[in-house]
Amino acid sequence: MEETFVPFRGIKNDLRARLLCYKQDWTGGIRAGIRILAPTTYIFFASAIPVISFGEQLERNTDGVLTAVQTLSSTALCGVIHSIIGGQPLLILGVAEPTVLMYTFMFNFAKDRKDLGEHLFLAWTGWVCVWTALLLFLLAILGACSIINRFTRLAGELFGLLIAMLFMQQAIRGVIEEFGIPQRENPNQTALMPSWRFGNGMFAMVLSFGLLLTAIKSRKARSWRYGTGWLRGFIADYGVPLMVLVWTAISYIPVRHVPKGIPRRLFSPNPWSPGAYSNWTVIKEMMNVPPLYIVGAFIPATMIAVLYYFDHSVASQLAQQKEFNLKKPSSYHYDLLLLGFLTILCGLIGIPPANGVIPQSPMHTKSLATLKHQLLRNKLSSTARQSMKKNSNLRQLYRNMQEAYNEMQTPLAFQMPPTLGLRELKESTLQLASSTGYIDAPVDETVFDVDKDIDDLLPVEVKEQRLSNLFQSLMVGSCVAAMPLLKKIPTSVLWGYFAFMAIESLPGNQFWERILLLFTAPSRRYKALEKYHATFIETVPFKTIAFFTVFQIAYLFMCFGITWIPIAGVLFPLLIMLLVPVRQYILSRFFKWAHLQDLDAAEYEEAPAVAYNMQFEGEDMEGRRVNIDDGEILDGVITRSRGEIRVTHSPKVTSSTLASLEAVRTPPAYSPRVVFSPRPGEPWLSPSPRLNGKGMEEKRPYSHSPGPSTLGKSPQGPS
Amino acid sequence: MEETFVPFRGIKNDLRARLLCYKQDWTGGIRAGIRILAPTTYIFFASAIPVISFGEQLERNTDGVLTAVQTLSSTALCGVIHSIIGGQPLLILGVAEPTVLMYTFMFNFAKDRKDLGEHLFLAWTGWVCVWTALLLFLLAILGACSIINRFTRLAGELFGLLIAMLFMQQAIRGVIEEFGIPQRENPNQTALMPSWRFGNGMFAMVLSFGLLLTAIKSRKARSWRYGTGWLRGFIADYGVPLMVLVWTAISYIPVRHVPKGIPRRLFSPNPWSPGAYSNWTVIKEMMNVPPLYIVGAFIPATMIAVLYYFDHSVASQLAQQKEFNLKKPSSYHYDLLLLGFLTILCGLIGIPPANGVIPQSPMHTKSLATLKHQLLRNKLSSTARQSMKKNSNLRQLYRNMQEAYNEMQTPLAFQMPPTLGLRELKESTLQLASSTGYIDAPVDETVFDVDKDIDDLLPVEVKEQRLSNLFQSLMVGSCVAAMPLLKKIPTSVLWGYFAFMAIESLPGNQFWERILLLFTAPSRRYKALEKYHATFIETVPFKTIAFFTVFQIAYLFMCFGITWIPIAGVLFPLLIMLLVPVRQYILSRFFKWAHLQDLDAAEYEEAPAVAYNMQFEGEDMEGRRVNIDDGEILDGVITRSRGEIRVTHSPKVTSSTLASLEAVRTPPAYSPRVVFSPRPGEPWLSPSPRLNGKGMEEKRPYSHSPGPSTLGKSPQGPS
Repeated sequence: MEETFVPFRGIKNDLRARLLCYKQDWTGGIRAGIRILAPTTYIFFASAIPVISFGEQLERNTDGVLTAVQTLSSTALCGVIHSIIGGQPLLILGVAEPTVLMYTFMFNFAKDRKDLGEHLFLAWTGWVCVWTALLLFLLAILGACSIINRFTRLAGELFGLLIAMLFMQQAIRGVIEEFGIPQRENPNQTALMPSWRFGNGMFAMVLSFGLLLTAIKSRKARSWRYGTGWLRGFIADYGVPLMVLVWTAISYIPVRHVPKGIPRRLFSPNPWSPGAYSNWTVIKEMMNVPPLYIVGAFIPATMIAVLYYFDHSVASQLAQQKEFNLKKPSSYHYDLLLLGFLTILCGLIGIPPANGVIPQSPMHTKSLATLKHQLLRNKLSSTARQSMKKNSNLRQLYRNMQEAYNEMQTPLAFQMPPTLGLRELKESTLQLASSTGYIDAPVDETVFDVDKDIDDLLPVEVKEQRLSNLFQSLMVGSCVAAMPLLKKIPTSVLWGYFAFMAIESLPGNQFWERILLLFTAPSRRYKALEKYHATFIETVPFKTIAFFTVFQIAYLFMCFGITWIPIAGVLFPLLIMLLVPVRQYILSRFFKWAHLQDLDAAEYEEAPAVAYNMQFEGEDMEGRRVNIDDGEILDGVITRSRGEIRVTHSPKVTSSTLASLEAVRTPPAYSPRVVFSPRPGEPWLSPSPRLNGKGMEEKRPYSHSPGPSTLGKSPQGPS
Repeated sequence: MEETFVPFRGIKNDLRARLLCYKQDWTGGIRAGIRILAPTTYIFFASAIPVISFGEQLERNTDGVLTAVQTLSSTALCGVIHSIIGGQPLLILGVAEPTVLMYTFMFNFAKDRKDLGEHLFLAWTGWVCVWTALLLFLLAILGACSIINRFTRLAGELFGLLIAMLFMQQAIRGVIEEFGIPQRENPNQTALMPSWRFGNGMFAMVLSFGLLLTAIKSRKARSWRYGTGWLRGFIADYGVPLMVLVWTAISYIPVRHVPKGIPRRLFSPNPWSPGAYSNWTVIKEMMNVPPLYIVGAFIPATMIAVLYYFDHSVASQLAQQKEFNLKKPSSYHYDLLLLGFLTILCGLIGIPPANGVIPQSPMHTKSLATLKHQLLRNKLSSTARQSMKKNSNLRQLYRNMQEAYNEMQTPLAFQMPPTLGLRELKESTLQLASSTGYIDAPVDETVFDVDKDIDDLLPVEVKEQRLSNLFQSLMVGSCVAAMPLLKKIPTSVLWGYFAFMAIESLPGNQFWERILLLFTAPSRRYKALEKYHATFIETVPFKTIAFFTVFQIAYLFMCFGITWIPIAGVLFPLLIMLLVPVRQYILSRFFKWAHLQDLDAAEYEEAPAVAYNMQFEGEDMEGRRVNIDDGEILDGVITRSRGEIRVTHSPKVTSSTLASLEAVRTPPAYSPRVVFSPRPGEPWLSPSPRLNGKGMEEKRPYSHSPGPSTLGKSPQGPS
């Protein structure tokens, strides 16, 4: 993505690039077949459950003017439109907590005004949405999203962790509230006696922890020892919705003596009950709003616009992290423009608008990566098995697999040569195999273990398509009709689910992994390197890592503290935006450039790299680049685990020059089978001529946009 | 152990053998230093908590005549005496559930008799104990324990699993009862209103599951990534008692509104409250029992004698399984004799007698194996590090480590050459290392990873001593004084602890592992082989394994069903004894001898082996034996994991002759790093001259006693 502020250019670029792969967005989804339902259901629950819960919160705060029916409708409507005509289909839209807080604030303001009141509240919010949309149009047209370039891992991951904290806070608060008297209820009923409240609270603990623990276990089902492969796959794919069902069923077990209302269940009016659909005709009343309030609506609109601009872009950025190895281009400007239209639409029909949400958007990408991994795996396994039947040797086997792999590559209009993951590992394996005399013998399972070795060969790839987003939006929409069923879910199961979402969003967040590293015994730090392939552990002194992480933690808690301030708290994104100058001008004084680059690579700093890092002087720059790419590809290749994505951070430019890259390529000192390691000096990977010296890796940095310095080489940009 | 029925011979043999190592039993314990406290505390809790809970049960059933004070006293008294003058100090004594059931039955019988009544109940049980003791003397003198020879893995593991089921049943029943009204309490108090009972039950779920999950996690602390090594070791060693403390503290959190009695806590009179010590002078009243009842006491005495004979011997056998690789001899006959004396002693002071308990006894051995493992590990690590500092090469390193290892060996009077575990693996490693050119280079951490490689080298060994048993018995005794503190523990924490004990006793039970295997996907069965090194998976067809296991499950449920029959249920051990003829005469008709031998090796069947297994004909028997021993030692060596014992089943005589033994020694087909495996035909282990051709392994079969056929070669028998 180009950092441009020329009006409309960003939108035009986005549209042009996404249109090139628009057809493939659909055909690719359809070709995945029935398996697309796994990520779809997974994201549907992650999307619907918070929206229902926010709806309930809104219902309490607005005296029933807005309910879960409206939040679900908004999420479904915006989701369907975005999945069809939106730019980046990985982005998931939904009504989020900040929106709920803003609407609560606006309701409290409106209901006390004589000339506005509860009656005209929705009409007034309609005006707020109109103003918000105008501001969003302005931002989109002027290319404000280009600033996303300046957002480094530091800001994105801090925001991700903050959202996880807010979800966890909601989970804990929810469980604690199960012990108290809910606002809306009559405190004299049996179920709210102190004794029953105690029982209700304890039951809520059982249900929420039950859901949390079983849901986490079920996600790992693919690596279980027990059950058939089909069953394990099913549980891994659909375990979370299944567990919501199971724990809802369990909540119906206690009947004798236990009064109605224990455990507490979701509360929402049915969409066909009177009053639940009064909002749809709000456009008729908009002209009744006094002109002063129409103008005054601009004030909340600015806050919402800033919020949406930030949330939408960061959600999109986190869904497109470099580690996911995406093939299709981003679309920040155009998506912001579309969000403007969606906001107007929602405002005119009196429902709270939806925007891009975290952690659902990155969860969506992860689940699609798992899907793609399985599809690739099945294809390559059958190819390998066929080759073995024909008594191929190792070289032929790899050739067949490479062909099968290429067939599976997305045929894009601006196709690059496929990533060389397979080829690279193949060569190094072949080299070692030849030294042990296996190279020409027919391959059998002792030399090439189909199930295991293929997992090691596969790079991370994502099934990028529009179908899963469309389907999940439609399913959210169908929840409106299924409200009587949804009301059977105990609220405590929701709190468990909130905690589950918070925990699910942690792996892959390098900030989180660095926090864990602080508590890791020095002798076991190498395990972090093994597990997350966090190369910075080798290149940056531990003290520097610790200092950097502690700074980030302090900043995180500052942001978290801000959210507790009644209304201003909604604007916590501003504090995160402040991280851009902090990172660029303040942090760079306290940390060595090279260390900072390892911990938090910033594209805009690429130019001064050579000047600063004196060690590189006099070296052949081209040779260096090749080596770096080797390292990167190996990173991508060796960090795979069965059916799960492990997100990695590639070294890019590391602080300890080629020596450290060599270290990446030779097996590290803690290798359990060291007697088999190659002689010192023997390269682990043979340096091979790079076909994709200008390949994808280089073009999709963390922020999904190369800096201005590499402008023009970008394949997904304008050519 | 010799299968002899000559009076007194068994007792004499036991005494003679144990006296030889009596001094070392103490010095060895003292040399372990402060670390001995880890297994001691672990077993103390495993011993005390059920005894307290059984005491509470007894108190309810005997209208307060016997309480936890008496069960704790009995456990402590018998434990102290047994640990000092008992034969096998690994055996843990305690008041067990069957004793509680028998005493309940006797109480119900006595209280309805006019001339006996509650008043003379304890005096009468005194007579029962006297008769029981006489029967036990008779059994011990006549060598009845020799029959233990006939007990195979089939019976022992079935019994172990049955006990685990009974513990789990107690845990589940306990939690369910938390929802109900306890017998002893006034049902009109606040805490027993339906609403509070519901809350109490749910709170009990939280506390018991909390304890169960955290206790299981804490046992694995040694392999955690977080925290310092010291903290991790501390949690792994003392995590279970710590968790009892933590969850007891948590149970005090709810205070507001919550009435006294929620959660329910342990109930027992303090030992100094009136009536709690009326039992100690029971001997004075024994002559007041009518003569008819003195004679009639013989009837319950026979039942108790059969029960104790079986329980005591099987507990001892399970604590001395072949896989533990014990160095010191068994002492079945003498221990039974001592049990007789202990029973009289308990009877005369009016407390229920203690006997050898499961699963505490095998838990004790396991925890001592962990201790020994750590001691060995520390010693060898420091040796290896020193060698590296001196720039030794790999050969010197192993020589130094071998010396250090030998120093650590228990210097017994009848010392065998140490097991060759270290030497064997060293040679194979050296051979492979030499082919990669590392052999003469100075060793550094890349070639020999101290932490990891030493774990792989260490064989299972047990710190056999008397100190841990003595200390844990004294600690149980101190519980009597600490009763006011113990009463703070919620009963629900106890139920969680029961479940924890049931689950802790499962790993290492091959029957359990075979049950799991039934549910394992065919493609993942190799994982069982990896994890438990269950060689039978390779040598016995899966259908046969399944059939054998299903038979065992059916038998298990039959035994479990029997325990539900009111009084006769106490005699469920008879049903397990019946397994001896079933195994010997019935199973042998349905299964091939060789398969049966793999699944359930029986010493008494060793003679017909060659006659039946025709494939061996013409082969050099001595050569065969050497190969088998190689396999066994490798078994022992390669199934170690950090800080945890993994119990293995050695192949002994496998059904597929040498080919399968070869398979054991060469890396299996699923090896993840197969390209590095040695060329076909190259032996994985070099066959080396066996110094201990008649070594310990051969002499300690599963039942801890070679059959009569190998009599005389036995080093721990009379020589």
